[in-house]
Amino acid sequence: MIKVGIVGGTGYTGVELLRLLAMHPHVEVTAITSRSEAGVRVSDMYPNLRGHYDTLAFSEPDAKQLGRLDAVFFATPHGVAHALASELLDQGTRVIDLSADFRLRDADEWAQWYGQPHGAPALLGEAVYGLPEMHREQIKTARLVAVPGCYPTAVQLGYLPLLEAGLVDAGRLIADCKSGVTGAGRGAKVGSLLAEASESMKAYGASGHRHLPEIRQGLTDIQAGAVSLTFVPHLTPMIRGIHATLYSTLIEAPGDLQTLFERRYAGEPCVDVMPPGSHPETRSVKGTNTCRIAVHRPENSDTVVVLSVIDNLVKGASGQAVQNLNLMFGYDEATGLSAPAVMP
Amino acid sequence: MIKVGIVGGTGYTGVELLRLLAMHPHVEVTAITSRSEAGVRVSDMYPNLRGHYDTLAFSEPDAKQLGRLDAVFFATPHGVAHALASELLDQGTRVIDLSADFRLRDADEWAQWYGQPHGAPALLGEAVYGLPEMHREQIKTARLVAVPGCYPTAVQLGYLPLLEAGLVDAGRLIADCKSGVTGAGRGAKVGSLLAEASESMKAYGASGHRHLPEIRQGLTDIQAGAVSLTFVPHLTPMIRGIHATLYSTLIEAPGDLQTLFERRYAGEPCVDVMPPGSHPETRSVKGTNTCRIAVHRPENSDTVVVLSVIDNLVKGASGQAVQNLNLMFGYDEATGLSAPAVMP
Amino acid sequence: MIKVGIVGGTGYTGVELLRLLAMHPHVEVTAITSRSEAGVRVSDMYPNLRGHYDTLAFSEPDAKQLGRLDAVFFATPHGVAHALASELLDQGTRVIDLSADFRLRDADEWAQWYGQPHGAPALLGEAVYGLPEMHREQIKTARLVAVPGCYPTAVQLGYLPLLEAGLVDAGRLIADCKSGVTGAGRGAKVGSLLAEASESMKAYGASGHRHLPEIRQGLTDIQAGAVSLTFVPHLTPMIRGIHATLYSTLIEAPGDLQTLFERRYAGEPCVDVMPPGSHPETRSVKGTNTCRIAVHRPENSDTVVVLSVIDNLVKGASGQAVQNLNLMFGYDEATGLSAPAVMP
Amino acid sequence: MIKVGIVGGTGYTGVELLRLLAMHPHVEVTAITSRSEAGVRVSDMYPNLRGHYDTLAFSEPDAKQLGRLDAVFFATPHGVAHALASELLDQGTRVIDLSADFRLRDADEWAQWYGQPHGAPALLGEAVYGLPEMHREQIKTARLVAVPGCYPTAVQLGYLPLLEAGLVDAGRLIADCKSGVTGAGRGAKVGSLLAEASESMKAYGASGHRHLPEIRQGLTDIQAGAVSLTFVPHLTPMIRGIHATLYSTLIEAPGDLQTLFERRYAGEPCVDVMPPGSHPETRSVKGTNTCRIAVHRPENSDTVVVLSVIDNLVKGASGQAVQNLNLMFGYDEATGLSAPAVMP
Repeated sequence: MIKVGIVGGTGYTGVELLRLLAMHPHVEVTAITSRSEAGVRVSDMYPNLRGHYDTLAFSEPDAKQLGRLDAVFFATPHGVAHALASELLDQGTRVIDLSADFRLRDADEWAQWYGQPHGAPALLGEAVYGLPEMHREQIKTARLVAVPGCYPTAVQLGYLPLLEAGLVDAGRLIADCKSGVTGAGRGAKVGSLLAEASESMKAYGASGHRHLPEIRQGLTDIQAGAVSLTFVPHLTPMIRGIHATLYSTLIEAPGDLQTLFERRYAGEPCVDVMPPGSHPETRSVKGTNTCRIAVHRPENSDTVVVLSVIDNLVKGASGQAVQNLNLMFGYDEATGLSAPAVMP
Repeated sequence: MIKVGIVGGTGYTGVELLRLLAMHPHVEVTAITSRSEAGVRVSDMYPNLRGHYDTLAFSEPDAKQLGRLDAVFFATPHGVAHALASELLDQGTRVIDLSADFRLRDADEWAQWYGQPHGAPALLGEAVYGLPEMHREQIKTARLVAVPGCYPTAVQLGYLPLLEAGLVDAGRLIADCKSGVTGAGRGAKVGSLLAEASESMKAYGASGHRHLPEIRQGLTDIQAGAVSLTFVPHLTPMIRGIHATLYSTLIEAPGDLQTLFERRYAGEPCVDVMPPGSHPETRSVKGTNTCRIAVHRPENSDTVVVLSVIDNLVKGASGQAVQNLNLMFGYDEATGLSAPAVMP
Repeated sequence: MIKVGIVGGTGYTGVELLRLLAMHPHVEVTAITSRSEAGVRVSDMYPNLRGHYDTLAFSEPDAKQLGRLDAVFFATPHGVAHALASELLDQGTRVIDLSADFRLRDADEWAQWYGQPHGAPALLGEAVYGLPEMHREQIKTARLVAVPGCYPTAVQLGYLPLLEAGLVDAGRLIADCKSGVTGAGRGAKVGSLLAEASESMKAYGASGHRHLPEIRQGLTDIQAGAVSLTFVPHLTPMIRGIHATLYSTLIEAPGDLQTLFERRYAGEPCVDVMPPGSHPETRSVKGTNTCRIAVHRPENSDTVVVLSVIDNLVKGASGQAVQNLNLMFGYDEATGLSAPAVMP
Repeated sequence: MIKVGIVGGTGYTGVELLRLLAMHPHVEVTAITSRSEAGVRVSDMYPNLRGHYDTLAFSEPDAKQLGRLDAVFFATPHGVAHALASELLDQGTRVIDLSADFRLRDADEWAQWYGQPHGAPALLGEAVYGLPEMHREQIKTARLVAVPGCYPTAVQLGYLPLLEAGLVDAGRLIADCKSGVTGAGRGAKVGSLLAEASESMKAYGASGHRHLPEIRQGLTDIQAGAVSLTFVPHLTPMIRGIHATLYSTLIEAPGDLQTLFERRYAGEPCVDVMPPGSHPETRSVKGTNTCRIAVHRPENSDTVVVLSVIDNLVKGASGQAVQNLNLMFGYDEATGLSAPAVMP
């Protein structure tokens, strides 16, 4: 049994960590911080947690106390983890950061996209990008893990087999992505109201989105070479789920794409390659840490279409964070992550 | 480890049984029947079950095979369980029926509401009404359990403390109930299409609904006397959930209603009395076997308003069925039923 | 052609006025005010208005300018209309107030429910309650009309025939009401997010809601005597629509209730009594100024159930405001209000 | 005033024609046919039409009677219009076909995609493809108009300015399209149930969809040369709306794309080019005959992204049919099509 804390627990990734960890046999959440809600019991704010965390309450963040824990999750807006992570690492606490703070290796690029200087550039060298399907071994021994973003997870897992095999033109990748509204967080924005966002669909950030450099960095690592990506996210009237539709152009005879994907993900506990001809639904992964993938080659042309779905709050955030924790502490990778999706 | 079967597994209560039993440590599902889908793997029909039931397939119902199992769930339309239940009981298999076939004690009343003669009146005497909060002891030794309907569960649990205490006028009860569309089952009806049922609200069956005699029978048992109930169900644009708003009139000074409810349900693993002033949300119980209840007395008048919410497919069907199985086989009552709701 | 203005036009009732008046042949909107959005074109904020109001922009409120118009609508939060209405009336401009500011005749009761002193008690005597089905003649000559609230409209129109006929016990009325989320306005509140309010149902204000005194006052007028009402509103996961389910107890033999309702509303352009056995859907009135009503007497008991549906933003606000304007200026009452609902 | 009929009026495009024509000053619907619902009043089936069509009832199709009308709309499944259209044209009635029966010029290609021989190949030569923005002049004098499909309308209008100007590589077009569920019609299919289709997103027909040859034919006409298109439709949890996200690659310096689009669509009553940087929402066109378009060039690369939204039942079907009728009979093109979208 290890003791963990959550910094910034009032948002959707925070409550999702609590939900998942309630089902984890080896983890106890002993601290959860929130400046605005200090003193409030988590089960008063999230009634689904009644009966699971009846005494746990939000508290002011305290580096000393957090530093006594085995691991601390950051479920904070960008910029918050920089300073505190360093303090915790110094006390021997391992850090799993769900924010964007340690995802980009280049501090300047981070500063450019997030509009402020990077607060802990010295840590960038050791931060491990927490995509287990790419970096499993480094994660096991990492002190500091940067959990990938939701879009980046769905897109990278979809392109991975194709780019590793060098089958497609890395200079012409198109990722058309659709997300549920929890991707925008729990902030009270007019655009996220049910009255505004339901019964409608729209693109956003068509001219540039903060997940773009993260995806590009990840695909470049996979490809071992430069990539060019067009990434258009869309807001979909549903609570959770990301559907990535990924287009690429074959540059050589591909052999059997289905087999390529199945082999690459054989043994992966959190990636499920669907049978040929499938169209994965986001609801089939809702609440779970699974990425479901199908690969198509329409009319046998030179265009490959990969369909990749995840729950943005689980495999795209809190579930992947727990998967990383399992690896870091030697538990079976899927511990606490095995409940099937609720469907319908 | 016991072996169980599911008869009529293609509907929503069937797949929900599979989902819940996938998390149950002591139960193995070894048979699931469907005439129309015989030969199809359940995980091909319900992709959320991929990785959980990769070999289980629908089969033709076979009384001999089912009769070798410890227990069989019926998730069938009304009228189907009558004959087969009898055969299974004769072979020593215990039966948990999620349909309406054994809920009413009076075969004539059943025939009147369901438009056909009752097929197994001889079994009505021993069938136990599977509402654990009322009939826990009988359930433990029952061979045949009739799992309550969804509306009846929400309504009875809401009125129970008031009627047991004799505080309200049993001759003037009003249950205004709202249900998600899965209450109408998985049948392909125009009225259940997203295009027809979303972005709208309507009542139905205002002049009489099949759950009315079941609720009346249950409330009469609780009250130990005649009751008069007006019951109006409504269709709500959501997948799951029942919200029962229950009105009654005080006939004597009630003392503290909050305490009355808390005491009645103290120790009940599947009923959660909310703090004073609460308004339970159906999403807080989605996917769980919990009934959340709040009690109000508006403007300190003689009207009591009870708000009672459940997931119609869990506490209102498959979860309550598992709760009954746990009692029948001596497991902890909430085994396999402890995952928190996914929220948001 | 008359010239009108809208004060506080950024909210949902403001944009709905613009939508409806775009189809009105005799009205030109020449001013719309908003302190926060001054200078912004309405079609930039509401793209559905592109091509309809391409030059109209929000402006700072200016009593002089507004005072030159024929009529001014207030689509403001409570308390705002008190002072400005008086100024406009003095200049001869007629005022149609969609807020709650002039609905209650008793300034003290208003102060109690709205937590501040009434700002224009001198006007309460002449303000006409703008429910045309009750007060048509007074509306025609009114200088100041208080447009009824959404819940009050649906509830009063449903009870009206029963109370006028003296058929039911006015001491035991129960109004169980369900509303879409636009009832909560365009404010950015966490509880109104799609992620929080969809796929769920809950009651709110079960112990007291601001529409209660308004409904009580209206029903008392109809009944010509005291009434006792329990009113429980619920939040439903849809954008628009109110479904009122109204319970009452017969105190004398009712004759044919269907005929009673049909006669009472014969000739009413905005009330539609459905055939016997009907269950009106809120979507059937979406975007329209119609109230659809059905009356039931379950199992021929002494309980009457009336189902009454409106669009909360149209017959419950902006459409009823236009209906009042039509009466005040001598136009046909349904002018500009005749487009059928979009369905599905 | 002209008299029109609708063949196959029970589906969504049929009721939508009725809704739109109720607001048309020059058209009277005097016949609507349905074999299954003959004798039923349209307002009994669609309560939103109460008060608009109180006497019109479905009737058996009768070529003689229909042949006396000025125009007949076909809102039928594919294959039905072939024989009857010919009969009506012979009697001098003009035909506006909303089905796919006359959209493809090549009878063999039609037979291949629809799995049956074409029933009226002799008419293919004179059928005019009813996209007014391309074929306005031919429509005016046409006897037989094939109204474009929903996806084809959104995709063609989005690519039109780019292809006409020869700016992009016609050999590498990617149309990622998202549709509400009414695109699947009013048929009672399990996959279209609210319980199945809400709170989820999925692609379908990724390997080939019936709209593909129609889009290809249209784009080839525009391009005046061969095109290669990848088309992936997605099911979105909303009632109405299509969002087409269109990718293409520049093959020469484009100049100002915004100006290109604005000039091409200047004066078009049913196409609205949004300001630079816009992301059109499907709800902004709900219920209207408008196509809203925005053009982006992410990071100033050689990839152009066009966002094109329509209401699949209006500009994608019944509204475009009325627009064609207006052209054919010399009315202003937007007659009866000017009501703003209901929003929110």
